Amino acid sequence: MSSLSRRERVRVFLESPLVQRAVICVIVVNAVTMGCETSPALMDSVGWLLVAVDHTALAIFTAEIAVRLYAYGRAFFKDPWNWFDTVIVAIALIPASGPTSILRALRILRALRLVSAVPSMRRVVHALLTAVPGMASILGLLVLLVYIAAVISTKLFGDILPERFDDLPRSLFTLFQIMTGDDWGTIAQAVMDHKPWAWVFFIAYILMSTFIALNLFIAVVVNAMNDAEDSPTEVRTQAELQAVREELAALNAKLDLLARRP
Amino acid sequence: MSSLSRRERVRVFLESPLVQRAVICVIVVNAVTMGCETSPALMDSVGWLLVAVDHTALAIFTAEIAVRLYAYGRAFFKDPWNWFDTVIVAIALIPASGPTSILRALRILRALRLVSAVPSMRRVVHALLTAVPGMASILGLLVLLVYIAAVISTKLFGDILPERFDDLPRSLFTLFQIMTGDDWGTIAQAVMDHKPWAWVFFIAYILMSTFIALNLFIAVVVNAMNDAEDSPTEVRTQAELQAVREELAALNAKLDLLARRP
Amino acid sequence: MSSLSRRERVRVFLESPLVQRAVICVIVVNAVTMGCETSPALMDSVGWLLVAVDHTALAIFTAEIAVRLYAYGRAFFKDPWNWFDTVIVAIALIPASGPTSILRALRILRALRLVSAVPSMRRVVHALLTAVPGMASILGLLVLLVYIAAVISTKLFGDILPERFDDLPRSLFTLFQIMTGDDWGTIAQAVMDHKPWAWVFFIAYILMSTFIALNLFIAVVVNAMNDAEDSPTEVRTQAELQAVREELAALNAKLDLLARRP
Amino acid sequence: MSSLSRRERVRVFLESPLVQRAVICVIVVNAVTMGCETSPALMDSVGWLLVAVDHTALAIFTAEIAVRLYAYGRAFFKDPWNWFDTVIVAIALIPASGPTSILRALRILRALRLVSAVPSMRRVVHALLTAVPGMASILGLLVLLVYIAAVISTKLFGDILPERFDDLPRSLFTLFQIMTGDDWGTIAQAVMDHKPWAWVFFIAYILMSTFIALNLFIAVVVNAMNDAEDSPTEVRTQAELQAVREELAALNAKLDLLARRP
Repeated sequence: MSSLSRRERVRVFLESPLVQRAVICVIVVNAVTMGCETSPALMDSVGWLLVAVDHTALAIFTAEIAVRLYAYGRAFFKDPWNWFDTVIVAIALIPASGPTSILRALRILRALRLVSAVPSMRRVVHALLTAVPGMASILGLLVLLVYIAAVISTKLFGDILPERFDDLPRSLFTLFQIMTGDDWGTIAQAVMDHKPWAWVFFIAYILMSTFIALNLFIAVVVNAMNDAEDSPTEVRTQAELQAVREELAALNAKLDLLARRP
Repeated sequence: MSSLSRRERVRVFLESPLVQRAVICVIVVNAVTMGCETSPALMDSVGWLLVAVDHTALAIFTAEIAVRLYAYGRAFFKDPWNWFDTVIVAIALIPASGPTSILRALRILRALRLVSAVPSMRRVVHALLTAVPGMASILGLLVLLVYIAAVISTKLFGDILPERFDDLPRSLFTLFQIMTGDDWGTIAQAVMDHKPWAWVFFIAYILMSTFIALNLFIAVVVNAMNDAEDSPTEVRTQAELQAVREELAALNAKLDLLARRP
Repeated sequence: MSSLSRRERVRVFLESPLVQRAVICVIVVNAVTMGCETSPALMDSVGWLLVAVDHTALAIFTAEIAVRLYAYGRAFFKDPWNWFDTVIVAIALIPASGPTSILRALRILRALRLVSAVPSMRRVVHALLTAVPGMASILGLLVLLVYIAAVISTKLFGDILPERFDDLPRSLFTLFQIMTGDDWGTIAQAVMDHKPWAWVFFIAYILMSTFIALNLFIAVVVNAMNDAEDSPTEVRTQAELQAVREELAALNAKLDLLARRP
Repeated sequence: MSSLSRRERVRVFLESPLVQRAVICVIVVNAVTMGCETSPALMDSVGWLLVAVDHTALAIFTAEIAVRLYAYGRAFFKDPWNWFDTVIVAIALIPASGPTSILRALRILRALRLVSAVPSMRRVVHALLTAVPGMASILGLLVLLVYIAAVISTKLFGDILPERFDDLPRSLFTLFQIMTGDDWGTIAQAVMDHKPWAWVFFIAYILMSTFIALNLFIAVVVNAMNDAEDSPTEVRTQAELQAVREELAALNAKLDLLARRP
C-alpha cells in the first residue's frame, strides 16, 4: 500500500464499497427529506431538522466532488457522469442565494445523483441513450409531421377553436395531445361542427403519427434485439462450430502424417 | 401399495386427478357464490344457501390444507404455493369474527386459489414473476422520475391546482394518471392558464416516462425471446451440426485404420 | 373433361377464378347497398333498387351454398368455412319474416362472407385463431383478476358510486373500462373523495392488469416469431450446413476408395 | 471533365454536397417563415420579408426542378421522389392565383421536400412504405370490422344517440374514436341508458378491433425483424461455416494427392 501515491490512496478510498454505499445512503435520505419539505405540516414541526439534513447532504455532495476532482485530476472531466454530478450539485448551490421558486424546486434534481451512484442504473441510462441515435431519422420525420400539421391547423382552425389552435405553439401542444390519444374526439367534434370535412385532417394525422410512432418503436426493439446477449442456442451453435473446426484440424494433421509416409 | 406409509398414501390421494379436480370445482363454485352474494336480490331469496356453500367451501379448504400439512410434514413449508394457499385461507378465516368491511371484501381472494390449483396458471404466474428481476433497474428509474416530478410539481403547481398537486401523495397519484395518458390535457391546460411555460414540464415528463416505460417493455420482450423455446430452424441447425460431427468422427476412424496399415 | 362426373364439373366451375371473383363482387356490392340502406334520404329516392339488389344478392348466396352442397356432398360439412357461410346466410334469411330490429341489423354480417371468399383474408383469420390457444392461461388469469376486483369494488364502493359499482355486471364493465385506461382518473377521484385509501385498489388493479396484458401480448409476439418464416440468414445457414455434409460425404467416399487399394 | 456533356456537368453540379445542403437550407428556412406567417403580430411587423422569402424559396424550388428535368431528361420521371417534389411545388404554385384557404394552408406541404432532400429520411419513408403491403390483408379485415360495426350501430343506436350514430359517416368516425380508446366509456354509458345490453356490442367491438390491431402490429414487427441486418452472432456463424468449408476443401485436395500416389 505504501507504494501508492496519496492521490491513488484517495481513489481507492472513494471506490471502496463502504464509501459508495454511504453516498447512496445520503442521496436517498436527502431525497426523502426534500419530499418531506413539500408538506407544510412537517415543515412547521420538524422543519429545522429537514433543512439541517438538506444542508449537510449538500455539503457532503460538494465535498465528495471536490475530493474526486483532487483524486482523479484531469481524468475527472473525461467521465460524463462527473459532469452530470457537478451540474446537479451546482444547480442546488445557486438558488441558496436567489429567490426564484423554479430553481428552488429544481433542487430535487439532486435525487438524480442516485443514477450516477448505482452502477445498474448507470447501465440502464447508458442503454437508453444509445438507443437514441438509431431513432433520429424517424423522430425527425415525426417532428416534421407535427410541425406541418400545426401550421395547417393554425391556418384552418385558428378562427374556429382559438383556445386550441390560436397560434403555432398552442397548435403544437394540441397536436401533441392528439398524438397521445387524449381527448382528441372532443377537439375533432368541436372543429367538425364548423368544418364538417375536418375529420379528414384528424384521422389522417392520427393514422400517420401512430404509424410513424409504431415504426419508431419497432426500430428501438430491433436494435435492442441485435444488441441483446446471444441466446443459449446461439452460444451452443458457436461452440459446436468451434468443435467441428478442431476436429477438422485433427483430420488434417493425420492426413499430413499419412502423406509423409513413403 | 401396502409398502407405502400412511402419509404416502395420503399424498397419492391428494395428488390424484379426481381430488385435484374436485378442489378446482369447489374453488369455482365458491367464487361464483361469493359473486352472487354481492346482489341484494339474490341474498334475500337464496342467501342462506350462498352462506352455507361459502362456509362449506371454507371448511373444505381448511381441511385440505390441514391434510396437506399432515401428508408433507416439513416439506409443506418449502413450496411457496402452500404458503400462498395458507395465507389466503387465513384471510378468509379472520373476518368471520370481525366487523371490518375491507377484510370481508377480501374473502374473494380465495378465488386466487384457482391459480395454485391449475398447473398451467401456476406456470404463467411463475413466468410473470421471473420477469420482474430483469425489470428492477428500469422500474427504479421510472419510480425515481415520478418521485422527482412529484416534488417539483407540488412546489410549483400546488397553489394553482390544489385538487391535483396539493401534497406529495396527491401529486404522485396525478403524475401516475398522466403517465397512463388519462386526461392529461385537461390538467396541463388548467396549470398553463396560470403558468404558460408549464407545457415544458408536462411534455418533458410524458416523453421521458413513455420512453422509460417503452424500454421497460422492450427489456421484458427481449428476456422473453431469449427464454423462449428454440425455433424449429434452430433445432434443425443443432441436429445438422450433430450429424456433421458424427460424420467427422467416422472419417477420423477410417483415417486411423488407414494409418495403421503397413 | 368428359371423364369428369357432373359433380366434379360443378366443382371445377365453382372454383374457377371467374366465379370466385363474381361472388366477391356480389358480396362487396351487397355490403355497399346495405350501408346505403342506413340513409333515409337514399331509401326515399332509390330504396326500391337497394332492396332489389339486397334480395338478389341473398338469392345468389343461397343458390351458391346449395350448389356447393350438391357439388361437395358430405365434404361440404368438413370445411369450417362452409359452416361459417351457411350460418351467416341463415341469419340473413330469418329476419325476412320477423320484426326484431337486432336481427335486421345483423344482416350486414353477410359482409363477413368476404373473409371466407378472399384466400388471403382466410389465412389472416386462421392465423388470428391459432394465436388464441397460446393465450388461454394468461387470458384466464386476466379474467380472474377482473372478476376478483369486481367483487371487491362492488362490496366496497357500491354505496359510494352506485352508477359505477352498483352490482357485479356494472362493476365488471367499469373495471374493463379502467383496464383500457379510459377516464379512470375521474372514477378513482370520485371514490377517493369518500375513501381516501382507494388509490391502493385502483393503482394495484391498473399495474396488475397492464402487466398481465403486456405478458399476454408478449406471448403472442413470441409465438408469432417462432411461427414466422425463416429469415434469409437462417436459410443460408441451412444451405451451408447442407453443403458441408455433401463435402464430408465426398471425402468419405474418397477415403473408402483409398482404403480398398492394396 | 471536358469529356462530360453539358447535361452531365449539370448533374454533377446538382448532386454536389454543396448544392444539396443549400437546397436543404432553403427548405428549412422556408418552413420556418411559413410557420411565422401564422402569427398576425409577425405578419404586421415583418410580413413583407416573410412573403419575399416565401416567393424566393418557391422560385428556387421551381428552378431546381426545371434544372433537374433538363439534366436527367426522361430519367427524371422514373424516380418517384421527383414526382413527389413536382406535385408538392405544383400545389404551392396553384393557390398563388386562387382564393381557397385550404390550398393556401397546404403550401406548408413544401416542408415535406425535406424528406426527399435528406437521404436518411428517404430511407425511413421507403422502409415505412415497404411495410404497408404486408399489412394489407389485416388492414382490410380491420376496415371490414369497422364498416360492419358502423352499419349495425347506425341501425341500432341511431335513434338513441343521433350526435354519435346518426348516419354511416358519423358512426364510422365514432367507431374509429372508440378504437383509439378515447372516451368510449361515456359513449357506451349513454347508449346503455336506453339499451342495457349494448355493452355486448361495445366490448366485443373493442376486443376484436384491439386484437386485430395487435396482430397488425405483430405482422409489422416480424417483417421488420426479418428485414433487419444480421446480428453479430449470425455474421460470426456464417464466417465459421465459410472457414469449415475452406478447410474441407483443403482436406479434399490432400486426399486427391494421396490417391494419385502409386
